[in-house]
Amino acid sequence: MPEHSYKHIEVTGSSSKSFDDAVKTAVAKAAMTLHNLHWFEVIETRGHIEGNEVKHWQVTVKIGFRLD
Amino acid sequence: MPEHSYKHIEVTGSSSKSFDDAVKTAVAKAAMTLHNLHWFEVIETRGHIEGNEVKHWQVTVKIGFRLD
Amino acid sequence: MPEHSYKHIEVTGSSSKSFDDAVKTAVAKAAMTLHNLHWFEVIETRGHIEGNEVKHWQVTVKIGFRLD
Amino acid sequence: MPEHSYKHIEVTGSSSKSFDDAVKTAVAKAAMTLHNLHWFEVIETRGHIEGNEVKHWQVTVKIGFRLD
Amino acid sequence: MPEHSYKHIEVTGSSSKSFDDAVKTAVAKAAMTLHNLHWFEVIETRGHIEGNEVKHWQVTVKIGFRLD
Amino acid sequence: MPEHSYKHIEVTGSSSKSFDDAVKTAVAKAAMTLHNLHWFEVIETRGHIEGNEVKHWQVTVKIGFRLD
Amino acid sequence: MPEHSYKHIEVTGSSSKSFDDAVKTAVAKAAMTLHNLHWFEVIETRGHIEGNEVKHWQVTVKIGFRLD
Amino acid sequence: MPEHSYKHIEVTGSSSKSFDDAVKTAVAKAAMTLHNLHWFEVIETRGHIEGNEVKHWQVTVKIGFRLD
Amino acid sequence: MPEHSYKHIEVTGSSSKSFDDAVKTAVAKAAMTLHNLHWFEVIETRGHIEGNEVKHWQVTVKIGFRLD
Amino acid sequence: MPEHSYKHIEVTGSSSKSFDDAVKTAVAKAAMTLHNLHWFEVIETRGHIEGNEVKHWQVTVKIGFRLD
Amino acid sequence: MPEHSYKHIEVTGSSSKSFDDAVKTAVAKAAMTLHNLHWFEVIETRGHIEGNEVKHWQVTVKIGFRLD
Amino acid sequence: MPEHSYKHIEVTGSSSKSFDDAVKTAVAKAAMTLHNLHWFEVIETRGHIEGNEVKHWQVTVKIGFRLD
Repeated sequence: MPEHSYKHIEVTGSSSKSFDDAVKTAVAKAAMTLHNLHWFEVIETRGHIEGNEVKHWQVTVKIGFRLD
Repeated sequence: MPEHSYKHIEVTGSSSKSFDDAVKTAVAKAAMTLHNLHWFEVIETRGHIEGNEVKHWQVTVKIGFRLD
Repeated sequence: MPEHSYKHIEVTGSSSKSFDDAVKTAVAKAAMTLHNLHWFEVIETRGHIEGNEVKHWQVTVKIGFRLD
Repeated sequence: MPEHSYKHIEVTGSSSKSFDDAVKTAVAKAAMTLHNLHWFEVIETRGHIEGNEVKHWQVTVKIGFRLD
Repeated sequence: MPEHSYKHIEVTGSSSKSFDDAVKTAVAKAAMTLHNLHWFEVIETRGHIEGNEVKHWQVTVKIGFRLD
Repeated sequence: MPEHSYKHIEVTGSSSKSFDDAVKTAVAKAAMTLHNLHWFEVIETRGHIEGNEVKHWQVTVKIGFRLD
Repeated sequence: MPEHSYKHIEVTGSSSKSFDDAVKTAVAKAAMTLHNLHWFEVIETRGHIEGNEVKHWQVTVKIGFRLD
Repeated sequence: MPEHSYKHIEVTGSSSKSFDDAVKTAVAKAAMTLHNLHWFEVIETRGHIEGNEVKHWQVTVKIGFRLD
Repeated sequence: MPEHSYKHIEVTGSSSKSFDDAVKTAVAKAAMTLHNLHWFEVIETRGHIEGNEVKHWQVTVKIGFRLD
Repeated sequence: MPEHSYKHIEVTGSSSKSFDDAVKTAVAKAAMTLHNLHWFEVIETRGHIEGNEVKHWQVTVKIGFRLD
Repeated sequence: MPEHSYKHIEVTGSSSKSFDDAVKTAVAKAAMTLHNLHWFEVIETRGHIEGNEVKHWQVTVKIGFRLD
Repeated sequence: MPEHSYKHIEVTGSSSKSFDDAVKTAVAKAAMTLHNLHWFEVIETRGHIEGNEVKHWQVTVKIGFRLD
């Protein structure tokens, strides 16, 4: 297996559904302009509260993609 | 849009169901005595194990509420 | 209630389903060789991406078990 | 000099003018409901951008006040 | 055993006697206005020096108390 | 209000005038090539010294911009 | 003096007496199953509160032991 | 000397030879698409193990480049 | 350009005027006994409160000076 | 590719030759009692000085191995 | 009360007796060459183990002293 | 073995050759004015880039020396 190099970006995804869904949104957003996404790491988990309930999740992930 | 000031508190919510539910419990508990809750940030995710299974989640969130 | 001592280990569990399931996998793996598991704390939440989607979650937990 | 005890709170102050002014706003807000404020420590310095310019500063300070 | 929620506060206790005593002072101060104190965690250990000797200890603890 | 996603970049701005001005320089530099800048967070505050005086401030900010 | 290699473990010791005693308990527990303990480092200092008093200290130490 | 602004990126370089070589690989990869690279800082040093030996080093560096 | 070595010191400067002025005070104090001061980094920003207003700023900086 | 679980251990390796060699020593030591070592991460880089020269390097690595 | 500037140093004190005594040793050592010691902060608490018992405590403190 | 006290300093060493060599440079520089150097710990690993290549390494080490 050859050795690869990776570049990292940081993206915040939002979701009114769940923590998991906010992570998937972040990955999907990054995939719109970048290829070869390889891994993610959760950096920060926040969210907005409205009417005393969790309105939506905002999860920041670091994403690594392979440099060709 | 006017500039607001916020105070932060730290609350641990518990749930036998899920990580997401423990966050919602923490927000609901804070909402019982405070108004204008605005955002949360997950600080720590722990839990108890009984019979070798996750018994309940204990998630600590920092919650910001708007000062009137 | 007597005072107990605990030892900690660190385990990474994987799951293609969800964040919560990866934590449960880590606890289940630790339970195969250790008794008296008592608590866990999430240390790191990562995952692999394939075809621009979250392929599986990899969650590292610190687990404390009671020393007899 | 006797020994004192202190309680800490965390407040975010905003200002469209400057970093320094946002800190002063946070202290002024805390002073509206608490006495004996003694010291502060800057925890986080953020702000909002509108029209590609810094619109206002949002500085979070930990404030210690003496317990009587 | 039911699941509980906790709120956390941060208090600095002082003592001219010892590190341990400064922690106990912080807990005693918190107990004057709050019920159901459950656990503490030491956050910071500082102190004042006078005449080239440790004059008093100032230990900051985070204290969790159960929400009814 | 719909849920947005954000990408983060990290920029160091310099100024011989002040801390505040170095932050504004960083934001202005980022605005030359990116739209929809939304917030910033100060990551590091450094500076150069010449002739025993602060010659210029170098402040690193993380900037979030909305993904369309 | 030859160069040694070390393995680290993490243990929480408890004591109703003092911080120092909880550290000694952790070391004594580790010594029941391991040889060649060489150093410790305090990682976390917590404790339980009952009746508004410190009931017992729980100190987590990392312990290094020499690999033969 | 005029004041410059910098943008930072994060790149992981790999090498089967050495730690130093993995850093150089990361810089070389970044240089393929960016000009005016100015400094680097090592953020994380990891690697893969195969057959119980270090197979290759993976070093993540933050790289700053001057904005024109 | 030759390669230099640097030693670092940590100094707290105070000012009743502003954050910026407290940094300049710290640098001026260090310059009274050391030559070749080269850079600074802000480590901690605190201050005292009197009469519910910011009385003075206390900013701790790490300062690097070139070894001859 | 199936999903794997991993356990982590922490080992300090020493070498009078180089940083790289101390990492390899740590991996070799761990390999004497464990199978399926998969990755390492450098946690701490220290060393001893004798006669004003670096006598040996002591590098602590976290090592992950696959649970069968 | 005038505004003061402080310089910080870092000292490790040892004691076979207790944690508290190791801190006092560090302060006493610093006082042998410096005047106007004002405060300390505990940075790291370690110790050596011999014969499976705590042989001595090694506590590192940051000490601030007033610049005249 | 008697108990010793140590003072710590922080030095940045540079080298165009390697990471290891920059550490040795830092130790050698410290040894020019101090005796009884005992250990070092790597705090930060940076470097300059010129012509898209690593020009020189700049490694900051904390060095402990025994107080007589």
